[in-house]
Amino acid sequence: MSEFRWDPLKCTWAITTNHRTRQPREFFVERQQVIMTACPFCPGRESSTPPEVFAIRSSESAANGPGWQVRAVPNKFPLLRIEGSLDNHSEGLYQTMQGIGAHEVIIETPVHEVSLADLEIAQLTSVLQAYRARLLDLRLDDRFRYLQVFKNHGVEAGAPVPHSHSQLIAVPITPPVIKAALNASRTYFRNNQCCLVCDLIAQEIADGRRVVRNDGHFLVVTPYAPVSPYELRLFPLHHCHDFALQSDAELTLFATALRDTLQRLRSLLRDPPYNFILHTAPPAHPRPGKPDYWTSLPYDFHWHLELVPRLNRIAGFEWGSGMFINTMPPEDSARHLRDVELADNP
Amino acid sequence: MSEFRWDPLKCTWAITTNHRTRQPREFFVERQQVIMTACPFCPGRESSTPPEVFAIRSSESAANGPGWQVRAVPNKFPLLRIEGSLDNHSEGLYQTMQGIGAHEVIIETPVHEVSLADLEIAQLTSVLQAYRARLLDLRLDDRFRYLQVFKNHGVEAGAPVPHSHSQLIAVPITPPVIKAALNASRTYFRNNQCCLVCDLIAQEIADGRRVVRNDGHFLVVTPYAPVSPYELRLFPLHHCHDFALQSDAELTLFATALRDTLQRLRSLLRDPPYNFILHTAPPAHPRPGKPDYWTSLPYDFHWHLELVPRLNRIAGFEWGSGMFINTMPPEDSARHLRDVELADNP
Repeated sequence: MSEFRWDPLKCTWAITTNHRTRQPREFFVERQQVIMTACPFCPGRESSTPPEVFAIRSSESAANGPGWQVRAVPNKFPLLRIEGSLDNHSEGLYQTMQGIGAHEVIIETPVHEVSLADLEIAQLTSVLQAYRARLLDLRLDDRFRYLQVFKNHGVEAGAPVPHSHSQLIAVPITPPVIKAALNASRTYFRNNQCCLVCDLIAQEIADGRRVVRNDGHFLVVTPYAPVSPYELRLFPLHHCHDFALQSDAELTLFATALRDTLQRLRSLLRDPPYNFILHTAPPAHPRPGKPDYWTSLPYDFHWHLELVPRLNRIAGFEWGSGMFINTMPPEDSARHLRDVELADNP
Repeated sequence: MSEFRWDPLKCTWAITTNHRTRQPREFFVERQQVIMTACPFCPGRESSTPPEVFAIRSSESAANGPGWQVRAVPNKFPLLRIEGSLDNHSEGLYQTMQGIGAHEVIIETPVHEVSLADLEIAQLTSVLQAYRARLLDLRLDDRFRYLQVFKNHGVEAGAPVPHSHSQLIAVPITPPVIKAALNASRTYFRNNQCCLVCDLIAQEIADGRRVVRNDGHFLVVTPYAPVSPYELRLFPLHHCHDFALQSDAELTLFATALRDTLQRLRSLLRDPPYNFILHTAPPAHPRPGKPDYWTSLPYDFHWHLELVPRLNRIAGFEWGSGMFINTMPPEDSARHLRDVELADNP
């Protein structure tokens, strides 16, 4: 049998089937391995990327040379460019604007062979600090309405370069699906005088069936209406609308929850391809004479990380309806992930 | 360089890059071939599917035996079931209902080896008649708010069984992306007293850059803001909200446009995996005491077919923002498809 389930965060319906018990091995993905002879992200090859816009590096090292721990650079083949005007105009019934935006790469480690799940907590915290620094900097450009930090892990999830990295894209548009999510948070807050995600966290903790991990700082759950088996969300327990406002101490706690989650996923599903997306409030610009509904009061949002293993194909029905079919009840996904035994970590 | 482009039909933004001229061969997909020893859709194996709900078959043949041209059967492993009550209820912040719906398979030909693009026009017209018949029948069930006919071609597009077939899913929900599209049509109609798609067709014909084919009955265009290279839309020139109201003559004309389009795609891109989705108005039920905004007056919609070759991966940015990145300007896609020379067809 199956159920329709409503996701109040994304405002989407999904179908979850539960006619029989499925095992993690049914979702193993054959991974394509990429061997690079000259990795553009390795130390010593800094000149193969555009000049760095942020780095955490030893004090004696020089910019754009070796000696870094984390390095943020503009994408060499950027989807969007930072210079120019939007030139927003209609073409009859259509609307268009120039591809203005930022497209950056955050190189997460100088070591080619390791993945994000292998990093020491201090190193992973540095990666999160790089996200924060780049978000804070790009927000100063008041053309940008939506900033997304995301990671593609594995060719199957869209990462042709195997050296571990994340990306940041800033665009002058609030995408409709993001508007829907912001609007849901806002409406809930106005109606209830409290945060949708805070209430959702309380419900999930009380229920327990979808909780993978709760260390008192961050909650890791499988969503009630997932689009994929083993889909996950990581929420700070303490309300905060904006990832970029998190302190170093909070980022360290988040690094611990994130690494533990990535290790569980890797252990259970043989290093599956995945994407993660950081959902944080839009920049709250003072825009003299340009009031914008979405950026006027973003404090009702609750930042979180969406983590989607890429285990199933998107076929015509999902493509046409936006309604996803998930063949693994999230209660089972959570139990499998909870039951993973991890070795002690440094 | 790239552009943001707004799709007024789907109400989404997409990014189209156009920094250099790309060739069709850059989008060839290595296809996985499936060999079946006992195909459940072949003539003589009718008992391996649930009993047929519709068939076009010779008058001397018996139901659920050989002698059919097109056969519609319930899916043997249905996602949804037709019996039962919705049991719509909340679980705290969540909403759920039972997986009530229809899930059918339309077997498009008795011949295992041929694809939809190979069918004779009369046979392809029979397939479209089967779509029409099943839509008309399932609409009698007034629980269903949204009915989708779709096709997955190739394993990569979600079709594990190679014998050519389409599917039909009926659900008791109007999915949010469908609501957005219906709403866009309705708003445009109310504001302009004419149909959005009719105006869009006029604009595309006048512009001409995205027109692949126009035979005076059906227009085939690449959308202004595509999510994929070589994405296509097929529109009837004559306004009609509902595919199921098309006459046999109109279906024959549509079969001609559809087969020609599929053949162009196959010739240009070496038989790419694809999905197509039939977008038609929701059933207009008289619902005593149950007024429903979406089904009350669907005549402002304009039915069409969305055809998406599956040539690129969905990565984190698209997944998180719903904003797709397309690396082939639709003006180039249309030109390549227009320039395909097809052999004479039976």
